[in-house]
Amino acid sequence: MQSTPFYQEEFIEYLNTFTVEREPVNLYEPVNYILQLGGKRLRPVLTLMSADIFDGDYKKALAAALSIEVFHNFSLVHDDIMDAAPLRRGKETVHIKWDTNTGILSGDAMLIIAYQLFESYEPKIFQALAKLFSKTALEVCEGQQYDVDFEVRNDVTIAEYLKMIEYKTAVLVGAAMQMGAIVANANKENQVAIYNFGRLLGIAFQLQDDYLDAFGDPKTFGKQVGGDIIENKKTYLYLKALEFLNESEAKELEILFNKELSDNADKIKRVKTLFLNSGSANATKQAIKDYTDKAYKVLDSLTISNDKKEQLKVFGNALMTRTT
Amino acid sequence: MQSTPFYQEEFIEYLNTFTVEREPVNLYEPVNYILQLGGKRLRPVLTLMSADIFDGDYKKALAAALSIEVFHNFSLVHDDIMDAAPLRRGKETVHIKWDTNTGILSGDAMLIIAYQLFESYEPKIFQALAKLFSKTALEVCEGQQYDVDFEVRNDVTIAEYLKMIEYKTAVLVGAAMQMGAIVANANKENQVAIYNFGRLLGIAFQLQDDYLDAFGDPKTFGKQVGGDIIENKKTYLYLKALEFLNESEAKELEILFNKELSDNADKIKRVKTLFLNSGSANATKQAIKDYTDKAYKVLDSLTISNDKKEQLKVFGNALMTRTT
Repeated sequence: MQSTPFYQEEFIEYLNTFTVEREPVNLYEPVNYILQLGGKRLRPVLTLMSADIFDGDYKKALAAALSIEVFHNFSLVHDDIMDAAPLRRGKETVHIKWDTNTGILSGDAMLIIAYQLFESYEPKIFQALAKLFSKTALEVCEGQQYDVDFEVRNDVTIAEYLKMIEYKTAVLVGAAMQMGAIVANANKENQVAIYNFGRLLGIAFQLQDDYLDAFGDPKTFGKQVGGDIIENKKTYLYLKALEFLNESEAKELEILFNKELSDNADKIKRVKTLFLNSGSANATKQAIKDYTDKAYKVLDSLTISNDKKEQLKVFGNALMTRTT
Repeated sequence: MQSTPFYQEEFIEYLNTFTVEREPVNLYEPVNYILQLGGKRLRPVLTLMSADIFDGDYKKALAAALSIEVFHNFSLVHDDIMDAAPLRRGKETVHIKWDTNTGILSGDAMLIIAYQLFESYEPKIFQALAKLFSKTALEVCEGQQYDVDFEVRNDVTIAEYLKMIEYKTAVLVGAAMQMGAIVANANKENQVAIYNFGRLLGIAFQLQDDYLDAFGDPKTFGKQVGGDIIENKKTYLYLKALEFLNESEAKELEILFNKELSDNADKIKRVKTLFLNSGSANATKQAIKDYTDKAYKVLDSLTISNDKKEQLKVFGNALMTRTT
């Protein structure tokens, strides 16, 4: 197993050889644009890492890793249309730089290209990858639909919220790791275990995203701190606060989360106080730790060396102590 | 080989067992809605027919046939958003009945479901079907992009137009037939031949659609006669007319095709006269015949009985003498 920067560099080199130079330009230019916007390349790195862990060759996993990254970027393009988001990684989103129709159609092309990237594998591996991919991709769509549905609901439970982030975010992390295992011909038990490791770490990662959105350091956190509060997003922090707060403070929080303000400084300050005083902030930190621990626990069942398990934990810890 | 109504009924029976009853409802209800809107089910019928022609069992081709139909309906849902179309088969389009975001996301889910429908086949067949599907689906996206690009261009050539309708419409007809051949384990030569038969017939079919849109009988033609003229669509009829008309009449046609009128009766009448007098109407009829003949010519290379070839021609003739 190599370091994260090693896999990142190898992946980016592979990505750069992939540029889609095809006609019609208006269909493929946005594909190249979004793929070159950058990002941590977390998912493809996990695919390569997982292939090495199961004694495969990470180079053989590059096509599967790119498929995962293309799919992830497909979902960003379509989600950004649905969320009417103007910016992605500090740059214009596809539907703003071009238009909504281009965003829809280029996104569709990316979903198909993601499947095509499996074509270099032999039929059995191809089918295993494509089946996992389809199952996961459909769950990501379901997660996105739950997210949309939750916006207009006031009775979302913690369990429903956790299912939503699991589908929208975590299953793709699990699938990224399982794909590395599939390419490396790992047995089914190891495949399931590494999938669950990624899935549980993915849930922890998303809960941490919720936490950092409110309590991250503005100097290091990539996005605007308090963004979820401004947008009245019913995150884990919010739902736990409603659970813990007394009736009048819960009412106050609900009222704050029905407001669209021009100046949000006071709102953010008050909401953060409610998150802290209610115990919700601590409960979120605890949930992050619980899911991370659950992920590490899954490693016990893997038939790989302890050294490799330790490296996976080091990777997980690096991910979970991030400030960005 | 059975009759078209036989395959239609078998397909619809299979489709009805497929209803997607999954959560979240807002994602899957539109999928069921669009699949139940009806239509001629031409593409899945061709898949079943093709499986029988190559001595396979049409029943084994039902999943592939449904995949083709789900993909076709996916493209309708996303195209209707892009075209801002309010109606589809006389009913509200998905993005009108629900909203644009639902249309985008349900469409995405349909594209994934189309791939999932291949999962019941063994790995080699699965890979062959999925590869053909991806190639075709990407071409359909490219065709749609060319169609969008052509709207704002005034220098579209006949060759470009033919490529556009080939990609947007005809390759899926070819793929529908090749999938039947793949499931029936036909050899590669027969697969290519039946693909080309479908593709060429598909081009003829789309040219006929252009012709009927202007010269069809309002009593039997499903859509509004003159619809393409109202929308200033640069069809084969229009491009051929520009080629054949003298300078002043060509100019007149171009000016007519830059107008958005509230009452289109005079415009339709005049444009149809120009199509007829220029010889464009006849040239279009000739092109339909040429592509149909080319399709029949391809049948010569198929290693199937003459009886079956004759049945394919009867099917083609029925398709090409339609008035609806």
